[in-house]
Amino acid sequence: MSAPSAPSGAPRGGLVPSDAAELVGILRDGIPRTRAQLAEQTGLARSTVSSRLDALMDAGLITAATDAASSGGRPPARVTFNAGARYIVSVDLGATHGVIALGDLAGTVLFSETAPLTISEGPEAVLDWALATAKRLVKASKRPRSELAGVGIGLPGPVQHSTGMPINPPIMPGWDRFDVPAYVRRTFDVPVLVDNDVNVLALGEHAVSWPTEDDLLFVKVSTGIGLGIIAGGSLQRGAAGSAGDLGHVRVPFSRETPRHGDENADLEALASGPAIARYIAERGTPAVSSADVLALARGGHPDAVAGIRQAGRDLGEVLATCVNLFNPSVIVVGGSIARAGEHLLAGVREVVYRQSTPLATEHLQIVPAAAGETGGVLGAAIMVAQHLLEPA
Amino acid sequence: MSAPSAPSGAPRGGLVPSDAAELVGILRDGIPRTRAQLAEQTGLARSTVSSRLDALMDAGLITAATDAASSGGRPPARVTFNAGARYIVSVDLGATHGVIALGDLAGTVLFSETAPLTISEGPEAVLDWALATAKRLVKASKRPRSELAGVGIGLPGPVQHSTGMPINPPIMPGWDRFDVPAYVRRTFDVPVLVDNDVNVLALGEHAVSWPTEDDLLFVKVSTGIGLGIIAGGSLQRGAAGSAGDLGHVRVPFSRETPRHGDENADLEALASGPAIARYIAERGTPAVSSADVLALARGGHPDAVAGIRQAGRDLGEVLATCVNLFNPSVIVVGGSIARAGEHLLAGVREVVYRQSTPLATEHLQIVPAAAGETGGVLGAAIMVAQHLLEPA
Repeated sequence: MSAPSAPSGAPRGGLVPSDAAELVGILRDGIPRTRAQLAEQTGLARSTVSSRLDALMDAGLITAATDAASSGGRPPARVTFNAGARYIVSVDLGATHGVIALGDLAGTVLFSETAPLTISEGPEAVLDWALATAKRLVKASKRPRSELAGVGIGLPGPVQHSTGMPINPPIMPGWDRFDVPAYVRRTFDVPVLVDNDVNVLALGEHAVSWPTEDDLLFVKVSTGIGLGIIAGGSLQRGAAGSAGDLGHVRVPFSRETPRHGDENADLEALASGPAIARYIAERGTPAVSSADVLALARGGHPDAVAGIRQAGRDLGEVLATCVNLFNPSVIVVGGSIARAGEHLLAGVREVVYRQSTPLATEHLQIVPAAAGETGGVLGAAIMVAQHLLEPA
Repeated sequence: MSAPSAPSGAPRGGLVPSDAAELVGILRDGIPRTRAQLAEQTGLARSTVSSRLDALMDAGLITAATDAASSGGRPPARVTFNAGARYIVSVDLGATHGVIALGDLAGTVLFSETAPLTISEGPEAVLDWALATAKRLVKASKRPRSELAGVGIGLPGPVQHSTGMPINPPIMPGWDRFDVPAYVRRTFDVPVLVDNDVNVLALGEHAVSWPTEDDLLFVKVSTGIGLGIIAGGSLQRGAAGSAGDLGHVRVPFSRETPRHGDENADLEALASGPAIARYIAERGTPAVSSADVLALARGGHPDAVAGIRQAGRDLGEVLATCVNLFNPSVIVVGGSIARAGEHLLAGVREVVYRQSTPLATEHLQIVPAAAGETGGVLGAAIMVAQHLLEPA
């Protein structure tokens, strides 16, 4: 098992002495442990455990646990992971808005700021804005730069995770093969990890809401449509980092589902925000953006509700295939269109539970995303923390 | 990362003292190492390494390596994995034939026997035959029963890997929820691992031919159609063990591909051996089984060749979706229909390279299976060895 080669600027385990990564991997759950427990759990010699813990204490990554109640006798000293020892800058860029945040090593968002942006203005303009915002948040936090552990960035298009470069991103003119980590390191000289927004959302949703499920699919429906794949407990990026390209999958129409539009079209052409806007416009109401679709649906506009429901069915046709292929226990549906009430989810459920095989749907949950607007920055922080803290 | 709960009768690492699993995991590649190298690689104390190696030597799983050339001075003692210390019985059952073999802990087939069978005769008749054959092979090998490490079985239908039970297998009447491991252990009281034939083939092909590729899909086309998924370096079975159910995926026809048959049909109804036999029969030549299809195609029969080519295109339509979703670096095409020359592969390549996105196909290889008729028993032996020898 291996990820693609280490992302540039981010030697795996760079924050942790390499021989101590196993200890950090155990302690990351936040449960305090004694040296004896750690020696037993790792099979390492007591003296080895002690010297590695000393190094981690020097780095501030673990601290002595304070025992709430002491019954008199001296309790054995325990150590615990110090998630606040370092902080992470995370950046979630969408087509039309961005969220910048400071988080700790457990992914908890400490400060965040949301603002409109235009991703098509190109990487330098957009990143300059994001980095200026991040610098302002860092300053307001009064945390020293030396405690910054890394920067995590989610982008709305395909990213080669190993290099951090967007590859032919359709809605991001000027970003193709732009070296995002190198550009960011001119401002923050720390490890920089970049992935597409859906992978980042899947990581965050899995870590926070479904940590015990090993097979989870996260679907994002907004301007584009993408899939984040957790299989066997790990995010799967595929050989070139392009796994989960759901938007370009063609829809296998079933007899029961009304057909509409170009039968040769891919899912994005049928069920994305712009496609739903077109569906509404064709019925007489001009609706120019995903944001309009959302507002109309929330107001109960019949064409908007019907359009989203139909998008849910089209999505369901493709997710039925995904269920047969991946056999997940959870499908999480997120993105702006999913936040317009239950219409999208209802369409998905209608088709998936009819089309997929009984064995695959018997214990399948299809649920809305829990994380909301800060899911992206939470996931980006988790991505950086996993990279820096987990044993290779 | 975790597999479903441990298969019955097969406590993970049962062959190896649990604290020595990490050492075996390292030594399994067959490269001899000194105690100092192992201590360095694991971070374990020298004394810990020594005591664990002693236990493994007692179990026969490692031996002192013999150095080919010694230049006089005493070379440091090295140890190496002893793949021949134990043997594995592996059973590959298809719809109409079976292969029974004895292999070593590296998957190498030592003895094998192939015979026709009828899977629909039910589990007791079929397993009785397989076990009798295995007992005969064990006797002929002159290996003591005490050296038998486990039994691995591949079945032509969905299997819940955690329990070893077939679940609603369409072409296996009488097998539904039959406790295969319990039945086998009445003859061989060792860990018994069962999986569907395609997962077993994927494990074997990956271990032998593509060990450095982390993202590989194995497609089997014969009486049925199935997919074995290696993602992130590991076989992915999904939450309930039903991942890779390619045969029940509906085909998203593209404008360029001629349509035929029921447009609402799943892939198996269009591209399996029986479907191709039907295609040939409809054009005037009676062809009753996959075996007939194979013989006709090898003889250059135009309808057989055209039918297989068309099956390849239909398969390609669905594999194009798989390429977008999984982004594999290798697709291996196996099963009896794939052995009828290049026709199936040509159809697959024609569609996949046209339909999938350029990023996903840039470095994608689509190749025929290397393993041939013994791929199933090889894979079943690898499944058992991985289960018994790898760190949890």
